[in-house]
Amino acid sequence: MDSDEIKPKSSLEIDASMTTSIEKNFEATEVPPWQQQLTLRAFVVSFLLSILFTFIVMKLNLTTGIIPSLNISAGLLGFFFVKCWTKLLEKSGFLKQPFTRQENTVIQTCIVASSGIAFSGGAASYVLGMSERIANLGEKAYLLDTKNPSLGWMIGFLFVVSFIGLFSVVPLRKIMIIDFKLTYPSGTATAHLINSFHTPEGAIIAKKKVKVLGKFFSFSFLWGFFQWFFTGGDDCGFASFPTFGLKAYKQKFYFDFSATYVGVGMICSHLTNISLLLGAILSWGVMWPLIGTRKGRWYDASLSDNSLHGLQGYKIFIAIAIILGDGLYNFAKVSLRSMVGLYLEYKKKNSGAILPCTDRDSTEVSPDQLFDDQRRTQYFLKDSIPNWAAVAGYVAIAVIAIAVLPHIIHQLKWYHVLILYIVAPPLAFCNAYGCGLTDWSLASTYGKLAIFIIGGWAGASHGGIVAGLAACGVMMNIVSTASDLTQDFKTGYMTLASPRSMFVSQIIGTAMGCVLSPCVFWIFYKAFPNLGLPESRYPAPYASLYRNIALLGVEGLSSLPKNCVTLCIIFFFGAIVINGLKDFLGKKYARFIPIPMAMAIPFYIGGYFAIDMCVGSLILFLWQYKNKAEADAFSPAVASGLICGDGIWTLPSSILALAGINPPICMKFVPR
Amino acid sequence: MDSDEIKPKSSLEIDASMTTSIEKNFEATEVPPWQQQLTLRAFVVSFLLSILFTFIVMKLNLTTGIIPSLNISAGLLGFFFVKCWTKLLEKSGFLKQPFTRQENTVIQTCIVASSGIAFSGGAASYVLGMSERIANLGEKAYLLDTKNPSLGWMIGFLFVVSFIGLFSVVPLRKIMIIDFKLTYPSGTATAHLINSFHTPEGAIIAKKKVKVLGKFFSFSFLWGFFQWFFTGGDDCGFASFPTFGLKAYKQKFYFDFSATYVGVGMICSHLTNISLLLGAILSWGVMWPLIGTRKGRWYDASLSDNSLHGLQGYKIFIAIAIILGDGLYNFAKVSLRSMVGLYLEYKKKNSGAILPCTDRDSTEVSPDQLFDDQRRTQYFLKDSIPNWAAVAGYVAIAVIAIAVLPHIIHQLKWYHVLILYIVAPPLAFCNAYGCGLTDWSLASTYGKLAIFIIGGWAGASHGGIVAGLAACGVMMNIVSTASDLTQDFKTGYMTLASPRSMFVSQIIGTAMGCVLSPCVFWIFYKAFPNLGLPESRYPAPYASLYRNIALLGVEGLSSLPKNCVTLCIIFFFGAIVINGLKDFLGKKYARFIPIPMAMAIPFYIGGYFAIDMCVGSLILFLWQYKNKAEADAFSPAVASGLICGDGIWTLPSSILALAGINPPICMKFVPR
Repeated sequence: MDSDEIKPKSSLEIDASMTTSIEKNFEATEVPPWQQQLTLRAFVVSFLLSILFTFIVMKLNLTTGIIPSLNISAGLLGFFFVKCWTKLLEKSGFLKQPFTRQENTVIQTCIVASSGIAFSGGAASYVLGMSERIANLGEKAYLLDTKNPSLGWMIGFLFVVSFIGLFSVVPLRKIMIIDFKLTYPSGTATAHLINSFHTPEGAIIAKKKVKVLGKFFSFSFLWGFFQWFFTGGDDCGFASFPTFGLKAYKQKFYFDFSATYVGVGMICSHLTNISLLLGAILSWGVMWPLIGTRKGRWYDASLSDNSLHGLQGYKIFIAIAIILGDGLYNFAKVSLRSMVGLYLEYKKKNSGAILPCTDRDSTEVSPDQLFDDQRRTQYFLKDSIPNWAAVAGYVAIAVIAIAVLPHIIHQLKWYHVLILYIVAPPLAFCNAYGCGLTDWSLASTYGKLAIFIIGGWAGASHGGIVAGLAACGVMMNIVSTASDLTQDFKTGYMTLASPRSMFVSQIIGTAMGCVLSPCVFWIFYKAFPNLGLPESRYPAPYASLYRNIALLGVEGLSSLPKNCVTLCIIFFFGAIVINGLKDFLGKKYARFIPIPMAMAIPFYIGGYFAIDMCVGSLILFLWQYKNKAEADAFSPAVASGLICGDGIWTLPSSILALAGINPPICMKFVPR
Repeated sequence: MDSDEIKPKSSLEIDASMTTSIEKNFEATEVPPWQQQLTLRAFVVSFLLSILFTFIVMKLNLTTGIIPSLNISAGLLGFFFVKCWTKLLEKSGFLKQPFTRQENTVIQTCIVASSGIAFSGGAASYVLGMSERIANLGEKAYLLDTKNPSLGWMIGFLFVVSFIGLFSVVPLRKIMIIDFKLTYPSGTATAHLINSFHTPEGAIIAKKKVKVLGKFFSFSFLWGFFQWFFTGGDDCGFASFPTFGLKAYKQKFYFDFSATYVGVGMICSHLTNISLLLGAILSWGVMWPLIGTRKGRWYDASLSDNSLHGLQGYKIFIAIAIILGDGLYNFAKVSLRSMVGLYLEYKKKNSGAILPCTDRDSTEVSPDQLFDDQRRTQYFLKDSIPNWAAVAGYVAIAVIAIAVLPHIIHQLKWYHVLILYIVAPPLAFCNAYGCGLTDWSLASTYGKLAIFIIGGWAGASHGGIVAGLAACGVMMNIVSTASDLTQDFKTGYMTLASPRSMFVSQIIGTAMGCVLSPCVFWIFYKAFPNLGLPESRYPAPYASLYRNIALLGVEGLSSLPKNCVTLCIIFFFGAIVINGLKDFLGKKYARFIPIPMAMAIPFYIGGYFAIDMCVGSLILFLWQYKNKAEADAFSPAVASGLICGDGIWTLPSSILALAGINPPICMKFVPR
């Protein structure tokens, strides 16, 4: 979804049988017209799963900000629910319409659109970053430059900014998928999953996977429930278990028994997990203790732990430096590749040569593939949406946004919004194109750019921080939607889903997300009063990080503690150099070089989740060592089960917290 | 070993191939002369494993007093060590003598003789029961009637009383095994195990089992090590984890994460585990809370928790009532069966009919079995020990004991000892015979009888309590040795081990045990200063129980709190009725009726270990449900691994405690 989040490896490898035609298997199956792909049951299931995934994404966002790809889980669970439903109706004789892969794609799309807003809607990042609570952690000078979250304005804000992305995608769709034939790895993987489920052998494997998922789902849910009983008080329970001793615990090195992050570790690549651990060791194991010894010389010893002028300043700004360095490098790289790609595309149009950097260049075109391509293109172009309608929609929504947004967020002026919507379409195009090539969305990098520019433009005295953060929201929503939904269209293309039904599904999904995401955030916000604070169970690291990026944009580097700027510059260029090295050395050696972006996250929040994730990695590694085929087939189901079970437990857990029911026991760890 | 301990089911079922001759498989293998069966390596391995098993038995004795059969573990580990040794020597070319099953039996016998003393030596029961520490828990009037344990007199005492059993067994040997052909289920199972290991296919399975054992051994050891870090203080660590909430924890219902008792639960029958749990629910769940509400009416509300005149009195004396009722019933039953058996044997001698209640009556005698019997009998009678030597040895040791024991324990008079040694041989015969029939040793019942009789005889004013407890030791050692070692001779008979080599091995094993067992107890006693107290990690329940049996013998029922005698009588007869019902209903229904003896143990110490054991039972049940063959083959190895790993961890743990190194963290559970 976003470059801040660590991209999981695509866990569904394309097996050997993919070289022969898939569509020939489905030739006898009728493709229903687009209206029939949009069934009531699909949207009921989508709604239920949207709640689940919004909870999961929100929880991940509020704890570490690392969000693995949940497409596989969404596909599996969607398939499971509708299959149960149709099985039940079939037995009672009420089944009117069989379950098709197109319908499955519609569900998938709806869930992605809806839960995507839990991320791009920024409740845990830029919206929370505007709040007084986060402002209190930082500079005292900007305490008034805040806007507290509330259910009303958040829903309104999201409705205004979220739909415009949909319209920007429409004209891109044909170019990216039919003309450029871009890969979109995640979208392709999801399509393969859905296609495989709807073939007879696939259904058996799907059943097994669903069973495994269910087992780990229950385990993870019950484990969450069990843990709850022991969390009556601060620093209580398994989440503060000093596995490696109390000294290590103080430096945030411990295994916190989180099923979610063990699952996330199983989905993310080994390299990502090791990078996180290395980052944790480098920062909390080496740098912070060393800087801590300079207390009184580098920074005022009397400062509170949370002060940006003290140790906290180093933590946040060095992390930001790495994230910006990594983001800038990837921005430059993807832009360059996009431009080269476009140039070659242009040349090809003139000369008829075959494109590089699309999926055509790697494999020879067999007659089977030609058949697939033809059939898919035919369905993809059948129910298209006219471009004029897309443009008209875009302009209409932009006008509404320009008129409404300054009333919601006073610090943001109408001309800021106008400029954003003029600049946005080409950026959305770039992002969708880059994502199709690399599976890497740069939405949050564009968002941070918007913070800097609009924040600086509005200026410190005119509420530049809130204006910048709001601009980030406007920009991120459109850019992120563009890449997410083009990804979905690729899935639709490969499953013969009608673009029109997908568009409707995306609109419905987005509308759901605009309501669900603020509501879920609101539950967390009300249930856990210390949410957002560094010592909380939900520290929401990106809220602080984003606010401090705005601070940098408004104020410059002047307020940082001693030597912090030097360190930031070292790490900024370090991130660029490491990235460059990875590309320079090639795939063979790159897998031994850590990912700077992943290393930066524990700089701020500590290493405990990195240890969870490494445990997940270790389990997967041992499983692969024992039985690679089984591990590859079932580990996504196990991981999804662990994530979803723990994720759904947050729903009752926050309800209990809201109802004022506190856990009865406190499991405490004290020195002898 | 003893009737206080819950007898495990014989976990090695006799497979179908046992109907054909075993000895024919071994016909080509030469049986070494008896001197060569006694190798140095065998005794080195025996010594090392004796240390391990003494630690395990002592720990079990000090925590709950439930000791499962460790024969299988001893057999497996003995095989593993000598096999490694011979493999190593074979490769380096130094191997002079191959590893035979006779040698394996010698090791097995030595370990059983040595670790048996950890139980019958009574360090955790009658010896600790003499101490001031236990006396302080009870009647203030008998505080002077104590003898504190010390390394010196314990070793002396054991050397005097332990060897006499060996000599009493010698004349019984031929009668029990050749003439009566008694079954001795545990001995037979061990012989099958050893025989199977020394056939080529058996060796492969043995290797697998050893691997499984090793895996769970390491896991259990590391788990014990990990737990240690969190036990810095009272009521800290996993052993006081309120799994079912703090209220249940106060009533001693919790899962204490003990690998040992999960393993013990896997070895003991499901019925035993369920009986323990039922006992825990009946006592700590129902009776104690109900009696607690009578505080102030039934007993003085101002009494301390440990006073025998308060709630503690009900706990101890009701448990004693059940144990005595169950013991009495089984004593009567086994005696009756023994007498009937002997009578029929006598009639057969006169008429030539085939014996009932021996293993001859169940199966037809095939030519294969005849061959086995002949060959085994031939080897069994070859190197026999003359009866005159045995009688001379017995008399010599008895004279020494009569002279020495009153000097070690002043309360015990020479005529007490004389009477005990006159009564002992027929009782030893009864016990060996009963054990051969039922696998149930009644040693501790005879011991309790001795407490009553000698205690009452000596009288309250002449140190009757210590005299009774010491008499218990004298009686238990001889009676327990008689059954244990005849059991071993059965194993030797079936593996063609020479009786002479076994006798030597038993002498060496006993000598080891006489030194090891007090030393290991001493380590525990010094390392854990609150050992023996009810709230300790090592409450040593039998120490209190035995002392209070002596108190009853000396003083009668007068000092018990209100209604306690009534309750005791109800439970005493209840135990007899339930046992009668079990025998009356037959095997089919008996498996649904709980075992009174098992129900009594949690009455005193609570239900936590019953929950551990039920977890073990549940694991085994699920495993059997999934794959019965695999579960039956490997569960003893898993259980042994869990028990031995945790058991060996107590060695470093007590060394750490002795060295004054305390765990760094306290994991505490407090109400919110």
